[in-house]
Amino acid sequence: MSESRNRQIVLAQLPGSGPLRLEHFVARDGARPVPGPRELLVRPIVLSIDSASRAWMNGPTYRPQLVPGDVMAGYALAEVVDAGDAAFAADDLVLADTGWQEWATVPATDATPVRRVAALTHHVSVLGVSGLTAHLGLHDVGRVRAGDTVVVSAAAGATGNVAGQLARIAGARVVGITGSPEKNAMLERDLGFDATVCHRDPDVLGALRAACPDGVDLYFDNVGGPLLDVVLRCTSRNARVVCCGAVSAYDDASAWSGLRQVPGRVVTHRLRIEGFIVLDLVDRWADATANLVRHVESGALRVLEDVLVGLDRAPEALIGMLAGENVGKRLVRVADDPG
Amino acid sequence: MSESRNRQIVLAQLPGSGPLRLEHFVARDGARPVPGPRELLVRPIVLSIDSASRAWMNGPTYRPQLVPGDVMAGYALAEVVDAGDAAFAADDLVLADTGWQEWATVPATDATPVRRVAALTHHVSVLGVSGLTAHLGLHDVGRVRAGDTVVVSAAAGATGNVAGQLARIAGARVVGITGSPEKNAMLERDLGFDATVCHRDPDVLGALRAACPDGVDLYFDNVGGPLLDVVLRCTSRNARVVCCGAVSAYDDASAWSGLRQVPGRVVTHRLRIEGFIVLDLVDRWADATANLVRHVESGALRVLEDVLVGLDRAPEALIGMLAGENVGKRLVRVADDPG
Repeated sequence: MSESRNRQIVLAQLPGSGPLRLEHFVARDGARPVPGPRELLVRPIVLSIDSASRAWMNGPTYRPQLVPGDVMAGYALAEVVDAGDAAFAADDLVLADTGWQEWATVPATDATPVRRVAALTHHVSVLGVSGLTAHLGLHDVGRVRAGDTVVVSAAAGATGNVAGQLARIAGARVVGITGSPEKNAMLERDLGFDATVCHRDPDVLGALRAACPDGVDLYFDNVGGPLLDVVLRCTSRNARVVCCGAVSAYDDASAWSGLRQVPGRVVTHRLRIEGFIVLDLVDRWADATANLVRHVESGALRVLEDVLVGLDRAPEALIGMLAGENVGKRLVRVADDPG
Repeated sequence: MSESRNRQIVLAQLPGSGPLRLEHFVARDGARPVPGPRELLVRPIVLSIDSASRAWMNGPTYRPQLVPGDVMAGYALAEVVDAGDAAFAADDLVLADTGWQEWATVPATDATPVRRVAALTHHVSVLGVSGLTAHLGLHDVGRVRAGDTVVVSAAAGATGNVAGQLARIAGARVVGITGSPEKNAMLERDLGFDATVCHRDPDVLGALRAACPDGVDLYFDNVGGPLLDVVLRCTSRNARVVCCGAVSAYDDASAWSGLRQVPGRVVTHRLRIEGFIVLDLVDRWADATANLVRHVESGALRVLEDVLVGLDRAPEALIGMLAGENVGKRLVRVADDPG
């Protein structure tokens, strides 16, 4: 790589309400950026591929909408190359929204220092936003209890597989929902899920009722859409629904006629449906991270990662993930681990 | 009335998914019932007419479904005539599910003693389930705070008018939604609502946005249906939706294509949608009642009651209420106040 080159993946056009495709992106060689005051120059090592990125293209969320010409946004584990006057040192590791590029400048206040305690990739998967979302959603928002029946959608995904394993560790009965028998077999065989359901089952309601004979006490929902209505019909009294994403709607806004179980069932079964964004709960990250590290080190929590190599593969990594092809956290390796 | 006669209103047929009509009921003269062990013989004085009664005809809720031949169920303020061996005295006042009849036996454990502190009818309106639902929904579930913008649907109804007034007393800005300009004028003129919206307004979303320039912090929802989707689009971050009923669906299950703002907006705006049944919170009734009595006695809380006279008018009282014709709590007086 030349001294000043900076390979970047740029959003060429917005996908609108249809599926994201390769032609919505373009790669270009830009110049390596120069950090301003209180900015860090960083080198992304591993990109976190997140379904939320697709929602950022549809309108303002908790961040402004992405527009054509933007370097595609996204978090990465990155190495600090030039800390300038900021309270970081060269070679420090940080998590930051670097975007999809080889070099980036980020405000020092937006970079989260990472103290390496595990394989570098784990800091972007089980110890990153995906794992934190699972832990905080399950415990702080969902208040999981031993004996609960917990259902997790997108259960082989980055957040879902961790949420399901953490529920098992908390003493719950865990039922995973995915789109494929292969993923379901893996969840039961390798991750200790008690039962699984395929959302393509023509009688998904019957299958879920059979898997949850005492009703669903906690639904960790990553997908929204018609599946949410199905799960709501299986809830027990005082059940909780943790809404952590609505990936079914990000890439296809047209398919769904709307929820029918809210508010009728919410009243009769005293349900609580609550949404959260992991960034709101930063004061809880240290505790959650310590728990996650402990469970990974003990072997109770298996780490599932799905890594593609090379920055140029980032678009296909995201597109494939939105189509459900990943198993575990999808990552793109942009550079080797620092020596 | 003869010594042994017991006029009763019986459910003659189920309305199915369509509107309730007079022919779904029939009046008959039964025999005065004889209390068994641990039962009270009571004489209903004022029937509480509640929209939940309509939901009881559609399937099991928190009680078994009503079926043809049942005396129509419902709560009343009643006088104990024969207390048998129970810890009540003749002439005691109780709230109980007597059903729509002149005489009833009820298990003593299901009768709530009433210590008269106000006009008898108030014990079935502002101090009854309607007022308690408003108080507990607003404070315990919704956690209203001074400065909140609170929106109340069915705001001229039995629960809604109390919820709106209590929100005003708590220091919130209060916006009421009803189906008529006359009700809205009354809410602003007589009950201190800050603004009102008519749900029949062709641009109800625009009207609600104009009435809530800083967004909706708390929605006290009595109706569900498409209006819930509209209000969800106006929510502020961390808003709460208290689901206390879904009256729009009880009497017409066909009209609605489904909610589209859940879970997408629930995630992006960190919403909490929570249902409750006032019967779950009996340990909070004494506190709430004391507050309600205090506000009624100070004049801060105006009592709105809509009373029809005569047991035989109970069906039209319910049917009319489901069509939105009542202003305040609808009651049917079955007997004079005890002397």
